Amino acid sequence: MGVTVAIDCMGGDHGPSVTVPATLAFLRSHPDARAILVGQPDVLTQALGDDLARFGERMRIHPATQVVGMDESPTVAMKNKKDSSMRVAINLVKEGEAQAAVSAGNTGALMAISRFVLKTLPGIDRPAIATVLPSMKGYIYVLDLGANVDCSAEHLLQFGIMGSQLVAAVEHVDRPRVGLLNIGEEEIKGNEVVKQASALLRASGLNFCGNVEDIYKGSADVVVCDGFVGNVALKTSEGLAQMLTAFLRQEFGRNLLTKAMALVALPALKAFKRRVDHRRYNGATLLGLRGVVVKSHGSADAYGFEQAIHRAAEAAANRLIERIGERMAAMTHGEAA
Amino acid sequence: MGVTVAIDCMGGDHGPSVTVPATLAFLRSHPDARAILVGQPDVLTQALGDDLARFGERMRIHPATQVVGMDESPTVAMKNKKDSSMRVAINLVKEGEAQAAVSAGNTGALMAISRFVLKTLPGIDRPAIATVLPSMKGYIYVLDLGANVDCSAEHLLQFGIMGSQLVAAVEHVDRPRVGLLNIGEEEIKGNEVVKQASALLRASGLNFCGNVEDIYKGSADVVVCDGFVGNVALKTSEGLAQMLTAFLRQEFGRNLLTKAMALVALPALKAFKRRVDHRRYNGATLLGLRGVVVKSHGSADAYGFEQAIHRAAEAAANRLIERIGERMAAMTHGEAA
Repeated sequence: MGVTVAIDCMGGDHGPSVTVPATLAFLRSHPDARAILVGQPDVLTQALGDDLARFGERMRIHPATQVVGMDESPTVAMKNKKDSSMRVAINLVKEGEAQAAVSAGNTGALMAISRFVLKTLPGIDRPAIATVLPSMKGYIYVLDLGANVDCSAEHLLQFGIMGSQLVAAVEHVDRPRVGLLNIGEEEIKGNEVVKQASALLRASGLNFCGNVEDIYKGSADVVVCDGFVGNVALKTSEGLAQMLTAFLRQEFGRNLLTKAMALVALPALKAFKRRVDHRRYNGATLLGLRGVVVKSHGSADAYGFEQAIHRAAEAAANRLIERIGERMAAMTHGEAA
Repeated sequence: MGVTVAIDCMGGDHGPSVTVPATLAFLRSHPDARAILVGQPDVLTQALGDDLARFGERMRIHPATQVVGMDESPTVAMKNKKDSSMRVAINLVKEGEAQAAVSAGNTGALMAISRFVLKTLPGIDRPAIATVLPSMKGYIYVLDLGANVDCSAEHLLQFGIMGSQLVAAVEHVDRPRVGLLNIGEEEIKGNEVVKQASALLRASGLNFCGNVEDIYKGSADVVVCDGFVGNVALKTSEGLAQMLTAFLRQEFGRNLLTKAMALVALPALKAFKRRVDHRRYNGATLLGLRGVVVKSHGSADAYGFEQAIHRAAEAAANRLIERIGERMAAMTHGEAA
């Protein structure tokens, strides 16, 4: 695909022990792609070993002396860490050296730095964070997931436009169905902001399919909501999945007999686990910026981080930023979708 | 326990075919309790058959000619259905004939009628809906679940007080831990309302344990949130649980071999299912009213509906309304919890 991805190799819970093998795996499976590994050169040289020479011009190290801590305040990271691997990776996108950046560093700092360095696209008030989740019918994209905790109806409309273009670019879906996360079909049909957003989305020319009450039903391709609600939905889902997994494990681990049952059922249990493996869905896209930035889960392993790099490369190769820009310009000039 | 419960026998998806057997099962397991079955006398008499005489004074039929439809607007139900089984059951609480009412009818109508007939307790601006869910450490109560879609910080404080008293009364927990549903510990720490609610809860004298990000962890006994967020969390949980169950069933149903695996693993799979059986958790309590009202899931079966009756009787027997009233009065006079 000819895309160059800048990798913040020092971010996340595991740093180069995860980011370096993930980058190598990505380059192996994408023969056209290039990667710039950003971080402390001596650490990265050692982590790469013999592989440093193997990829020739497709891979290079770019120095950055600092690292943004996982709990560091975005303000402090912005002010005091101008040579952090996170910031330098995003600078490379800004300068056109790379078409996308990937980091497993802290979300707040990544959003603040991305916004400061890259700026938002014309017509976009606030960038949003989108992720993909499994659904009954395949997958579903949800945004915002926490960048914006107090949203107006106009923000939700912008999320709809950005999310729609993300799915079009990355999943090659023509006119993705956009849903609005809302509660019940009874008397109570959402708060004021959601009611207004519904009207705006309906008039937007997007393929708006109305209210969505259960994101996992898969009745839409993209679901928009404010960042507080989206973050609660995501954390609630993670918590419930963890609890159910723990309960299943406890029931099978109860005694020798149930342990034997688990052994017999292992292939089916493994297939189930593979199917809902959160690592496959790793990589949240920061949308609305003048450049592609993907946030990996901080605790992702090499397989998960590789998916985040893949996601960033796919978005850049399919002109995500240009698509959102064109769509926003068309909206401003009153054209239909 | 000597409590009398008024049962809306005509409400819900299944009406008397579920509500009548559930009431009989409840009376069998609670030798002190009494029930008033509200609905069309001929229908109920037929559904009861020989059982009508069996419970003597512990059970009687109270006539109501109308039924509130599951999709009926609360306003219409209020205005045109003054002799509905739902309304009459709540009237019986108002008149002191019963100490609690249970209905599987539509939530909006039940809340509107309860509020109109029973009125709210002094100091309570808005009633809320609370439910119990399984957690890693047992169970957790969550409110509000949809009665209030735009809440102020003061409303969230009132939810904390009501939820705390509910857990104290029904679960016999001394000073229940109250948590506030919020997002991340990063820069973004919730919207303005949540930030203010946190301060109010901290100063309230309640056993406030701070922000809760994942309700299923079980780090609190009660979690408060606005009705929009609570409803999204509940619906997201239901959707995810359904999806995971479907996936598990699909993996075990794939072919003859995996079906055989499922047969072998059946006892463990059944134990798992029992553990997360939503019927055990059926029965959402309408809090803040001058009377106990419990809403059963519309599609509940007899076992589920019986749990809702049990929950209502337990709340009434343990003076839920008086407890909330006393706590609100103490708050007004500036006393500690």
